[in-house]
Formats: sequence, structure tokens, C-alpha cells
Amino acid sequence: MKVSEIAKLFNGKLINLKEDIEITGLKSLFTADKGDLTFVVDKKLYDLAKQTKASAILVKEPIEDLQIPQIIVENPQSAFYKLIDIFYPDKKLKPRKAKTAKISKKVKIGKNVYIGDYVVIEDNVEIGNNVVIYPFSYIGENTKIGNDVIIYPRVTIYKNTQIGNRVIIHSGAVIGADGFGYYRENNQHIKIKHIGKVIIEDDVEIGANTTIDRAMLDETVIKKGTKIDNLVMIAHNCVIGERTIFAAQVGIAGSTKVGNDVILAGQVGVADHIKIGDNVIVTGKSGVWSNLESGKMYGSNIPAMEWSKWKRVLAVLVKLPDIYKKLKGKF
Amino acid sequence: MKVSEIAKLFNGKLINLKEDIEITGLKSLFTADKGDLTFVVDKKLYDLAKQTKASAILVKEPIEDLQIPQIIVENPQSAFYKLIDIFYPDKKLKPRKAKTAKISKKVKIGKNVYIGDYVVIEDNVEIGNNVVIYPFSYIGENTKIGNDVIIYPRVTIYKNTQIGNRVIIHSGAVIGADGFGYYRENNQHIKIKHIGKVIIEDDVEIGANTTIDRAMLDETVIKKGTKIDNLVMIAHNCVIGERTIFAAQVGIAGSTKVGNDVILAGQVGVADHIKIGDNVIVTGKSGVWSNLESGKMYGSNIPAMEWSKWKRVLAVLVKLPDIYKKLKGKF
Amino acid sequence: MKVSEIAKLFNGKLINLKEDIEITGLKSLFTADKGDLTFVVDKKLYDLAKQTKASAILVKEPIEDLQIPQIIVENPQSAFYKLIDIFYPDKKLKPRKAKTAKISKKVKIGKNVYIGDYVVIEDNVEIGNNVVIYPFSYIGENTKIGNDVIIYPRVTIYKNTQIGNRVIIHSGAVIGADGFGYYRENNQHIKIKHIGKVIIEDDVEIGANTTIDRAMLDETVIKKGTKIDNLVMIAHNCVIGERTIFAAQVGIAGSTKVGNDVILAGQVGVADHIKIGDNVIVTGKSGVWSNLESGKMYGSNIPAMEWSKWKRVLAVLVKLPDIYKKLKGKF
Repeated sequence: MKVSEIAKLFNGKLINLKEDIEITGLKSLFTADKGDLTFVVDKKLYDLAKQTKASAILVKEPIEDLQIPQIIVENPQSAFYKLIDIFYPDKKLKPRKAKTAKISKKVKIGKNVYIGDYVVIEDNVEIGNNVVIYPFSYIGENTKIGNDVIIYPRVTIYKNTQIGNRVIIHSGAVIGADGFGYYRENNQHIKIKHIGKVIIEDDVEIGANTTIDRAMLDETVIKKGTKIDNLVMIAHNCVIGERTIFAAQVGIAGSTKVGNDVILAGQVGVADHIKIGDNVIVTGKSGVWSNLESGKMYGSNIPAMEWSKWKRVLAVLVKLPDIYKKLKGKF
Repeated sequence: MKVSEIAKLFNGKLINLKEDIEITGLKSLFTADKGDLTFVVDKKLYDLAKQTKASAILVKEPIEDLQIPQIIVENPQSAFYKLIDIFYPDKKLKPRKAKTAKISKKVKIGKNVYIGDYVVIEDNVEIGNNVVIYPFSYIGENTKIGNDVIIYPRVTIYKNTQIGNRVIIHSGAVIGADGFGYYRENNQHIKIKHIGKVIIEDDVEIGANTTIDRAMLDETVIKKGTKIDNLVMIAHNCVIGERTIFAAQVGIAGSTKVGNDVILAGQVGVADHIKIGDNVIVTGKSGVWSNLESGKMYGSNIPAMEWSKWKRVLAVLVKLPDIYKKLKGKF
Repeated sequence: MKVSEIAKLFNGKLINLKEDIEITGLKSLFTADKGDLTFVVDKKLYDLAKQTKASAILVKEPIEDLQIPQIIVENPQSAFYKLIDIFYPDKKLKPRKAKTAKISKKVKIGKNVYIGDYVVIEDNVEIGNNVVIYPFSYIGENTKIGNDVIIYPRVTIYKNTQIGNRVIIHSGAVIGADGFGYYRENNQHIKIKHIGKVIIEDDVEIGANTTIDRAMLDETVIKKGTKIDNLVMIAHNCVIGERTIFAAQVGIAGSTKVGNDVILAGQVGVADHIKIGDNVIVTGKSGVWSNLESGKMYGSNIPAMEWSKWKRVLAVLVKLPDIYKKLKGKF
């Protein structure tokens, strides 16, 4: 695409264009070279942007003294992301069922499906259209998989799982293992059989080596549009709302309900049977032991409290040695 | 089973029985429907129990104004769990050795063993009776596996591991990888070869994507009846006692010894060379840097201290901004 | 090897030798038996060393009243580690390409390579000499692997990854999954396509079930000699320095740069876009929210601060209930 074509695509204004060259790559500000397009959003980087070797740049407003062609668009970042999809399309995998895939005869498979080598699919599984299943994935019996799903290598899906459309599951994820439940009798832990299931709704993405356990009787649910990073643990009977974000290594204990549009930053832990409202943000590494109200920001691991309060506590906390020194004479 | 048969099975008293109907399902209080049996323990739920659509309920004592048949038993919860085993028996897997399984000729295999597709079993492995090994699991050489063991898909067992009877290992677990040990020489980390092993005793359950590292010279041991949740890390040379519970994402550093009947809640971290006594409880997300005494409860990440003390610290901690405001005038 | 031969190998002085017996095993102080060599470094263990049943011991200085042959060497520990390599050499795997391995024809493979059963290697992969790839590992297209690399069972390497020489990757690790990045549009999270890669330099070791995500445009880099334990998460665009140590369950958010010779203890979390200098130590479970200066030690999760400061804060923190009691009368 030529610079002018990119500008046109996003209804952008084009300045500094001397020669309408062909853009051949998309790079970050500092790695871009001749032929590359880049973008800048952060005003602190405007000065550095003048050193970029890129042949054109996406910006929100004209940057003075920046001589390369500037494409002025409402949202340079999302325009750039959209261009990535255009410039670097995924290699189309030709539909196939690998001969080495062990697929039960009692399986329904849609159109344009790619099943890689060494996939095992058990009885009564249903798979929609345009699904890609990479090698070494295991699909347990009675599982239903929607359309346009990508299952990367080495994913385990235990029996009875329901997976919606456009779901992406990364390598090593384990969906539907037994919930962690026992009762004690005769001085032993007796396993509680888990006959529930996991439901993954549309447009969910699940990170590498993440685990989502099956419910005891009912359902562990991940609602539509929610994105889960790597090494996250979601325990039995949890219900996670829509468009919620769990960063890496988050852990949610059993039967906890999380609302819509929630963000849990990395390594946050939430106790069992907790309710988290909608639009809640919890900062990294926080420990949540009580219900959290919609629309608020929480932090800290002592346990999590409202962020504004925690900031005030923290401000005094770090002064404690000084305060104590002053106090000591006065007791 | 009819309602009366269930009552009889647990020596329960039966009230409100108008018609001795057939129970066809087991459900929770709120999802139960006609034909289902449910249970209630928590007195706070007694009022809500009156709205259940279940056809019968297991209770500890008669609930007033609840018109459906009530089966009064000593422990409604464990009765219900036992009924799950009866109502939803596991599908029996017919013993087989899949043709696609690569099994060394130098392997001893017991009776009634199921070895799924694409399992690899190396030299000198011994496997007991009634063992199930799902696809894509790898059993390293010289490993011994007892009777009635279930190994879910995609489990790795490195060489020389010993696994007892009735052990369950969930998908993605890695048993016996090298311990994390190096010595520094010539400004480099030199790997310390780990020639020890992992021993998993009887009745242990190991969660999805959990890792248990092999000892340097001796043994990493998980003693009988201990239950370990998902994404837990147990480092080289640890010895974990009997009937101990590790919730998800717990991490135990090298050479730490944990006693019997201990509970570590989710995301707890324990430093290396620590001793934790018997019957210890550590609350979620705590960081343990020193030995913990038997029979006590600990909490907090600053590091873990006795729970009763931590609660008192915490009570003041959250008041710090107010205290500081009052103090400021007085310095 | 005889005791005298071992002494000679390390230029050690030999005392108490009555009979120059053959050493047949290497064991720890308490598990050693007749025929075994052991070692002791910690002076607190000198008394206990007198009870060892070992036939000889490596020590830094003569221990009084210890009757068994003592080999006095500068560094008993590293001498012992070197002997492990000599006494317990790895079984040589005979080079092979298993018939069940699915290897694209467009792959270059060096000399003396072992490719186990059920390995999948996609187009345009290059593999060096003396590489071992265990069963169920998946190597995505355009990946380059150096010499003397060991890839344990069930490792996933996504496309375009670069792996140096003498790298060890443990079972369940996932290298190069998509970074966790979305932009919000029309009330949805839209996936940002990640076209970057992961570069693992020489002599890196990566633990079981660890995940390292691919960069958005550029590179996620693990520099030479760095050692990463199990269940660690390294996000997109991170650059981790040389000879750095990450203990288990550490998590590093996107675009963070970590210096050389850094030690992050278990369960440490680092926020995104942070810079950590060289020779930094961060104690277990700490949360890092700001840049850390070279050569310093940090701790705590409130967030991490200099260790010396945190120790002073902590000293007052645990006294808060007492301080508050004394203060209460004075407000």
C-alpha cells in the first residue's frame, strides 16, 4: 500500500508527502527503517519521533519539525493495529483431517476444519466450521465447539465442555479438569466427584498453560468477550462476566462471581464465594477477600481495599520508621 | 432410586413423603427441578430452600414449612457426595493398549490397564493393575506406578519417579523435572545435575499444570493422602506430609518440609529450608519466611505471622491515615 | 574412582586415609552409606558430619574428630557437583528421527540429532547438531534451534522463534504464544496481532510449564546464561539480561527490561514498562511497580522498596498494636 492509500483507508489527512512511496513494513518508532510505517501516541515521544527512520507515521495531530509524511487520524494506534492485520495476514491452513488424528466415528465436524497431526477427539464431540485444531490437543467426549475457533498445540479439553464461536485457546491450557473439592471422613480427604462442566462463550481468549476447572454440579462460565492471559487459575463454579480482563497468574477460588468489564492485573488472587461488581479494577498482586463494588478501583494485599484509601495508608506506612523515632521519646 | 431407598441407604428419617417418586438427578438448591434431589447445610439458606423445585432434600434437621420430602441424616453434604458417585458412575474404559502407544518392550504392565493413543512409555517402567493413562502422556524410564492410578492427557513423568496407588494426576502436570540449582564459576551459572527422584505416595491427587521437581541427590516426597490443586510448584528436595492441602498457585521453595494435615490456601509462597509443623493453616497469598509451629493459623505477606497477631496489626494499619493526622499536630 | 584419585582430581589434600577404597556413590551427609562420598560446607553441620556413614568427605578445612578420610579442597560443593557429572553420566540417546515424528520436508537438521516419537516440526525450521527433542514437542515454522539443545517432552515453540546453543527447555513450557494485547472499539476488546518473536540466547534454561510470549512487533529476548524456573510468565516485548535468575512463579508484565545478574526470588511480580538495573536482588513475593537501581536489594509487596528501608518499616509495622495502645490515651 502506498502512503496515500493508507491515509485514504482511515480518512486521514496527509501532510509532508513528497513522494508517495510503497509501505512494506510496520515497525515501532525505534526499529522502523526505510519503507516502514510507524505510529506515535505518547506526546513524550514526539521529540524522539523526529529520529525515526520510518518512511511515514500515523499521528493524531501534526508534529512540528517532523519531516516525514504524517497521516493524521483520530486513533493512530488502532489504525496501526488494523494495518497489521492487513499487512501480515495469517497463512491459510488448508482444511484437512490428518491421518494421524484419532477421531471417533461419533463426531460431527463442520466445513473448512483443520485437524492437525496427533489430535485425539473422543465420542460425541461436535465441531463447527472453520475450526483449527493444532497437534497434540485432546478433546474429551460430548464437547461442543463453535465456529472459527483456534485451538493451539497441546490443549486439553475434558469431557462435556462447551466452547462458543471465535474462541482462541493457547498451548498448554487445560479446560474442565476436576474442581478441587474433598470432604473429610475417617481422617481422610474423600474426593467429591465433579459432574458439572465448563462453558466458554463467544470471543473468549485463553492464555498458555491457564487452567479452568469444571463445576461440581453446575457450570463454570467464562462469558463472551473475556480475555484471559497465561497461567491463570479459575476454580470450579466461578462465573466470569463479559469483556473482563485477567492478566497473567491471576487466581480465582471456587464459586466466585466476577462482573462485566472488570480488570484484574497480574497475580491478583480472589478468595472463594466473592462477588466482584462491574467495571472494577484491581491492581497487580492484590488479595481480594471481600466483595468489591462496581465502578471502583481496589489495591493491596492486606487485603485489597479501595485504591484511594490504600494510597493514604501506604503514604503513612513508608514513614513509620520516622514516626516511630519521633514518638519514642513521648511515650 | 426412590426417595425411601435413599433415606434407607443413609439410615435417614423421612418426613413429608406423599409419593415415593424416583430420583433421577442430583442438583444444587437453585438449579434442581422435578425428579432431582438436593441438599442444604447452611442455615442461612433455609428460607431459600423453600423455593427449591427439587423433589426431595437431604437435611440435618427438619425444616419447617418446607413441603417436599425431607431426608434427615447426620451429614447431608457427605450423603449427597456419595450419591453423586452412585448416580453418575464413571464410564468404564475397556482395558486396551492403543496401537499408537509407544511402549518399550522392557515394561511390566498389570491387569486391566488402559493405555490411550499416543502414550510413550520408556524402558523399565512398571505399571500396576487398573491403571488408566490418557493420550499424550510420557512416562520416563525406571518409573514405577502403583494400582488404580489415573493419568490424564498430557502428563509428563520424568525418569525414576515412584507413584503409589490410587494417585490421580491431572492434565499438564510435570513430575520430576530437574530441580532449579546452579553454582557460579567463571562468571557463569553451572547446572547442578539432579540425580534424585520424586516419590508420590498413595491417594495423592495432583492438579492440572502443577510441577514437582526431582531432588538433587535424594527424594522430593509427597506423602499419602495429600491433595494438590492446579499450577502449584513444589521444588527439589521438599517433603510434604500426609493429608495436606495445597490450593492453587502455591509455591514451595527447595528443601522445605511441610507437616501432616496442613492447609496452604491459594497463592501462598514458602521460602526454602523452612519447616512447617502439623495442622498448620496459612491464609491465602501469605509469604512464609520462617518455621511455623504445629496447630497454629498464620497469615500475611509481610511475612506470615500468627493470624491473631496479624489481625491486630491490620486493625491499626487501616487506621494509619487517621492516626497520622491526629499525631501530626503533636510532634 | 578411589578416594586418592578424587583428591588428585581437585588438587585436594587427603587426611585420615587408612585404606584407599573405591567410591561408588555420591550422597548427602545423612543418606550416605559405605562406599559413598559426601561433602559438608556449613560449619553448623560439622558436629553432625561426625555421624555420617560415608566412606569419605569433601571439606574446606580439616574437621577435628572426624575419622573418615577427608579430602580438603578449596570449594567442596562445586567439587561434589562436578563429581556428580562424572559418576552419573547421562545415558547417550542414539541419534534417530522417529518414524512417527512428522517433520516437514523443508527442514534442515544437523548431525547427531535425536527426534523422539510424536514430534511435529513445521516448515522451514532449522535445527543444529546434537539436539535432543523428546516426544510430543511442537516446533512452529521458521524456528531456528542452535546446537546441543535439549527440548523435553511436551514443549510448544510457536513460529519464528530463535533458540541459541546449549539451551534446555523443560516439559510443558510454551515459547512464543501471542502477547496479551487488545484495543477497545465498539465496546469490544479487539485482538492486536502479534507479529514479533521470541529470542532465547545461548545457555538459557527454561523451567517446566513456563510461558514466554512473543513480542507485538519486535522481540521478547532472554539473554545468554539466564536461568528461569517453573511456572514463570514473561510477557510480550520483555528483555531479560544475561545470567539472570528467575525463581518459580515469577511474573514479568509487558515491555519490562531486566538487567544482567539479577535475582528475582519466587512469586515476584514486576509491572509493565519497568526497568530493573544490573545485580539487583528482589526478595520473594515482592511487587515491583517502579524502576530498580543497579546493585541494590529490594523487598515487599507494598510495593517493593529498598530492603534496608523495608526492614525498618516492618520492624515498626509488627509493633503497631502496642504503639496504638500506648497512643490511644494521648489523643
